[in-house]
Amino acid sequence: MATYDELQIGDSASFTKTLSETDIYLFAGITGDLNPAHVDAVSAAGGMFKQRIAHGMLTASFISTVLAMKLPGPGTIYLSQNSQFRAPVFIGDTVTATVECVEKLDKRQWAKFKTTVVNQDGKLVVDGEAMVIPPSAAKA
Amino acid sequence: MATYDELQIGDSASFTKTLSETDIYLFAGITGDLNPAHVDAVSAAGGMFKQRIAHGMLTASFISTVLAMKLPGPGTIYLSQNSQFRAPVFIGDTVTATVECVEKLDKRQWAKFKTTVVNQDGKLVVDGEAMVIPPSAAKA
Amino acid sequence: MATYDELQIGDSASFTKTLSETDIYLFAGITGDLNPAHVDAVSAAGGMFKQRIAHGMLTASFISTVLAMKLPGPGTIYLSQNSQFRAPVFIGDTVTATVECVEKLDKRQWAKFKTTVVNQDGKLVVDGEAMVIPPSAAKA
Amino acid sequence: MATYDELQIGDSASFTKTLSETDIYLFAGITGDLNPAHVDAVSAAGGMFKQRIAHGMLTASFISTVLAMKLPGPGTIYLSQNSQFRAPVFIGDTVTATVECVEKLDKRQWAKFKTTVVNQDGKLVVDGEAMVIPPSAAKA
Repeated sequence: MATYDELQIGDSASFTKTLSETDIYLFAGITGDLNPAHVDAVSAAGGMFKQRIAHGMLTASFISTVLAMKLPGPGTIYLSQNSQFRAPVFIGDTVTATVECVEKLDKRQWAKFKTTVVNQDGKLVVDGEAMVIPPSAAKA
Repeated sequence: MATYDELQIGDSASFTKTLSETDIYLFAGITGDLNPAHVDAVSAAGGMFKQRIAHGMLTASFISTVLAMKLPGPGTIYLSQNSQFRAPVFIGDTVTATVECVEKLDKRQWAKFKTTVVNQDGKLVVDGEAMVIPPSAAKA
Repeated sequence: MATYDELQIGDSASFTKTLSETDIYLFAGITGDLNPAHVDAVSAAGGMFKQRIAHGMLTASFISTVLAMKLPGPGTIYLSQNSQFRAPVFIGDTVTATVECVEKLDKRQWAKFKTTVVNQDGKLVVDGEAMVIPPSAAKA
Repeated sequence: MATYDELQIGDSASFTKTLSETDIYLFAGITGDLNPAHVDAVSAAGGMFKQRIAHGMLTASFISTVLAMKLPGPGTIYLSQNSQFRAPVFIGDTVTATVECVEKLDKRQWAKFKTTVVNQDGKLVVDGEAMVIPPSAAKA
């Protein structure tokens, strides 16, 4: 965890998870996005990617995990997230979400992070940028 | 559902859900974001919002639901999503995600949507913009 | 089900389940234990066990299932559980949890059980001991 | 995270979660422990605790979370866990699991931890002890 003052440009942290069918189905159930691309294997087999894919917003959400749990960590206020969905994520893919501090806005005490998610082959699947308010004091 | 040609500037669609504790806990479990703000009622009671809040990316994900299920609908390719988290969403809040087509990029056949999520009081909780490729031909 | 008086030294009962990826992922989500050993197939492939493993406490929890559902059964009060994690459990393994009454403490009306979990090859994966208060009267 | 050499007697770490009905129901579903004490509100209302309670092994599992995610952290090998279930945990209770290193066994490079779970009132609900092999080298 890092407060605004402790946070340095270039600091980074990551979280990795192998995406299961369960992850995708629960995400579909919570959000109501039961698009055939995610939950219809027959339709997906005949589509662009030849198989079911994870929701882009599910993959992008691992960025939230890193920001909230690791850097800056608990106490962080999430102001915005921009995400470009670059490539599909399939069931069984192992994705790594990484955040890297790229700018500190001293007047407002905000911090900007470059946010990326890559798959097990290092291929960029989600690209983006987050703005947060780091915690004002370190907590356990 | 609407193909690129059928889609008109100003077209809009919505999806509404009451956020349950279950939604938030499952989202926490899928993503690994078990930040105290989401799953620790005692800590949250002493924090800025006085109670547990939903993950911003969970609330933002309902935009994905509208784009994928309603407008443009199944077959849409999601290119990007920008989200600003404007206000907290609490357990039991009823959020409505709305997308409205604001621009058509004829050369690339892309469409831009204004994307908003409001709570039961009409308060804006997530603001943003999405870029998508609408389906090229209508599907059932 | 057995009350304290009905319960005999040597009585035993079992429960068997094939561990799914879903079991492990839901357990990870509930507990917040998203250790790479459980949810990161790439990291696990390079680790000691060459693949993702179930949480030891998940496997051990099937003991609770047998005690609560079968022997002594509903109405049992669970006082303690000691577990030694002897060998890894992988996705797709079929584990059998068995409890066997090994001692009756007449003064307190407590019963001690030897508790074991084995995999489909009969290999001991969790070893241990439980102390319980059996139900005082049989219930349906 | 701490390797065996970095780990000091007295080092401790915690994890806190408000137990939801969802947590208890999913744990029941995964393990098959659908004891009336956990999932039958009518029966529980007439029982010793007057309401449904969490599974002892669910509450105890948060110890695994702290050991695996925080101290010693990723790479830790879990050898054993002893748990005494001291008091009931109800839906909505906020439990804090804490591990504290109490002994280092230099010959085997094992570490012993005192493990406790308390509720929001500081009441001890699970007491115990864990033995682990801390990671041999720090990982990200």
